[in-house]
Amino acid sequence: MRLPADADRLRTDIEANAAFGRVETDDPDARGRTNRTGTEANREARDYLVERLRDAGLDVTIDAVGNVVGRWVPNGVDPGAAPVAAGSHLDSVPEGGIFDGPLGVYAAVESVRAMRDAGIQPERPVLVAIFTEEEGSTFGDGLLGSSVATGTVDVETALALENDSGETLADALSRIGYRGEGLLDPADWDAFFELHVEQDTVLESAGVDVGVVTTITGITHCTVEIEGQANHAGATAMADRTDALAAASEFVLDVESAANDVVETGSAAAVGTVGSLSVSPNATNVVPGRVACGVDVRAVTRGPIERIVSAARESLDRLERDRGVETALDRPFHVDPTAMSDRLRTTAHEAAADAGRSATDLHSGAAHDAMRVADVTDAALLFAPSRDGISHNPREWTDWEYCAAATEVLAGALAEAAGATGTQGDTA
Amino acid sequence: MRLPADADRLRTDIEANAAFGRVETDDPDARGRTNRTGTEANREARDYLVERLRDAGLDVTIDAVGNVVGRWVPNGVDPGAAPVAAGSHLDSVPEGGIFDGPLGVYAAVESVRAMRDAGIQPERPVLVAIFTEEEGSTFGDGLLGSSVATGTVDVETALALENDSGETLADALSRIGYRGEGLLDPADWDAFFELHVEQDTVLESAGVDVGVVTTITGITHCTVEIEGQANHAGATAMADRTDALAAASEFVLDVESAANDVVETGSAAAVGTVGSLSVSPNATNVVPGRVACGVDVRAVTRGPIERIVSAARESLDRLERDRGVETALDRPFHVDPTAMSDRLRTTAHEAAADAGRSATDLHSGAAHDAMRVADVTDAALLFAPSRDGISHNPREWTDWEYCAAATEVLAGALAEAAGATGTQGDTA
Repeated sequence: MRLPADADRLRTDIEANAAFGRVETDDPDARGRTNRTGTEANREARDYLVERLRDAGLDVTIDAVGNVVGRWVPNGVDPGAAPVAAGSHLDSVPEGGIFDGPLGVYAAVESVRAMRDAGIQPERPVLVAIFTEEEGSTFGDGLLGSSVATGTVDVETALALENDSGETLADALSRIGYRGEGLLDPADWDAFFELHVEQDTVLESAGVDVGVVTTITGITHCTVEIEGQANHAGATAMADRTDALAAASEFVLDVESAANDVVETGSAAAVGTVGSLSVSPNATNVVPGRVACGVDVRAVTRGPIERIVSAARESLDRLERDRGVETALDRPFHVDPTAMSDRLRTTAHEAAADAGRSATDLHSGAAHDAMRVADVTDAALLFAPSRDGISHNPREWTDWEYCAAATEVLAGALAEAAGATGTQGDTA
Repeated sequence: MRLPADADRLRTDIEANAAFGRVETDDPDARGRTNRTGTEANREARDYLVERLRDAGLDVTIDAVGNVVGRWVPNGVDPGAAPVAAGSHLDSVPEGGIFDGPLGVYAAVESVRAMRDAGIQPERPVLVAIFTEEEGSTFGDGLLGSSVATGTVDVETALALENDSGETLADALSRIGYRGEGLLDPADWDAFFELHVEQDTVLESAGVDVGVVTTITGITHCTVEIEGQANHAGATAMADRTDALAAASEFVLDVESAANDVVETGSAAAVGTVGSLSVSPNATNVVPGRVACGVDVRAVTRGPIERIVSAARESLDRLERDRGVETALDRPFHVDPTAMSDRLRTTAHEAAADAGRSATDLHSGAAHDAMRVADVTDAALLFAPSRDGISHNPREWTDWEYCAAATEVLAGALAEAAGATGTQGDTA
């Protein structure tokens, strides 16, 4: 099915959303935002979305963890039929880009508007779903709203998570007016589509409009503590030190080497990153006494993940022997690789063909809410090209033309999955 | 001259001071404090000191940058004669020890009390001087109060320095009631003695009671920025990254190696430390885009300092070539090595002999206010032994017996420099 999306309407929404938590920068190629769950910027982004959903004729509800759902049940649709849904998230990492999340949210809104404008008659209710705290930058480890909705994380556990200021998610949501009741239940859905920016260069390199994800990589997060001995940087001879930062520096490089080794032995999609690192006391004139860091490891199969984690453990063992530090590694988060729905992938490829857009299969190195939804129902993940593969950065960019193209594919696939018929639907 | 110090009185003061900003810890060997300039803990410590000075009969004044001076001018002393002074600082690094600074402050207070108790009649006024923000953990780069008093830093520049919250030193001092008028002027002093904990293991290893410093090492601080590219940790292949933290990790290890190399080629006192490091965005799932770090380099001659700084610059050049990062190195702080007064060193050794305490010459790897005072008048720096050389750490410790012994040496030397005569003074 082919459904023309209104590129201007889509761009207006994404640009309006980009203003909430805008990051000021001198770089003409940069346009960032910091939109953390529970902040004023987050409230503004949610308010704007709710208005757009209502303008498009959707009934809006908020669940207990702040997930937002807009529901379109045109006359003649059985409200009890399993709905089809599309959506993504509005929160961002600190200094993130303007497309990561919002593209999928406003492409879903635009898909419903396009169906209405085209006089489409679906057989099932159509939902637009926005999940809370996908990034995990503020509360927990990421995919929070979709994890609660799909039963992976208990609602009470989620609401008790605290941000850096010690405020709970429950209190933060109440404060911004987005602590609702009940829980979104994707297990009741017939299908879920998420459109997202690729955040890598596969589509750009291949010159392809849309990616259809086959598998989302597995992810492990490790937290590592390295304890040395804080001491005076001037009065402590080099030979008398147990410098936690020097030890941590070896660890960072060991993780990088381990991931490079795994890539060289054939697991091209494997990655290992020390993304966060905090030093204590963190004063120029004090030998660092303690370092805490966060490690992210991913691959499309389990084996490479375990090889990188093992190398990290071996690095810490060696540092204990060679540098006299004490170390600890915890592994608070792990998800196995997740396959996307074959049925919906076929629907997406057909929609791309109908829209005259090129499409290719690829894997996702990033986790997305579609990964959680795939645990309970059929889910598909579509990608739009990212310029230079840059993401989680104000220089993240997807050309507006690509945004519109991918939205057309999403709209066509969503309409098809909804069993749509109508003036334009008949051309499919 | 021999002057018995009251060990209990000294200990009472140091322990009372240790309560201000106390660091809670489970370690039975640890007793830390965080006493940053302008905090409530800092106000309490200053208030307690002012009370002790007044109790001992000293007139107290506060200067424009919060330096505190107590002045003892017994009957018969020419108030216009060049005074002798002793003192140190009350501020600490974050999670520092309870002796670093306070030992020298309360040893000076106790020296005056001991002189009074012994019926000593000095020829010159005796001052107890406490300098603001010696550590440089909160405002500026360290030695701030003594730098202003000796003309190295302009008073307006100092007052405009900001803490992490953006509050100026002027406002912070006003808030805690320690923004006075005028400036302490050590150039008018005849002599200055500072007693401090050694923060190294020379005295402990040699089993000696007191150290008499010959030279204070030169110090350079460098600030380093490493700019890579923030990006999604899952979606960015290993080969496509410009990871600022991986680059910074090589830099940390290069600085450590350079210092070790310089030590191996004969400059045993040389040290190089990356003490602070901050990552941006600092999220587990984001490839680090930017790292800022602070480097501390010291040696008792200029050459080794320059060799380590050159190695740091070469490391950054190599990282630009090999890893594609952009780097910058600034050098906002440098002081050359500083010799202590031969006259006062002799006085100190004589006081140690009179008190029956062992003493040895050594260098200081740490900067102290005595370094700034030495620019404008004769200055001496005495050390008490540090257990295991640990400092800038809650496990910093100097046995009370050593505190009292060093205080006796300080008191004897100060009395001698003040031209004291009296009942016990005659025994010298």
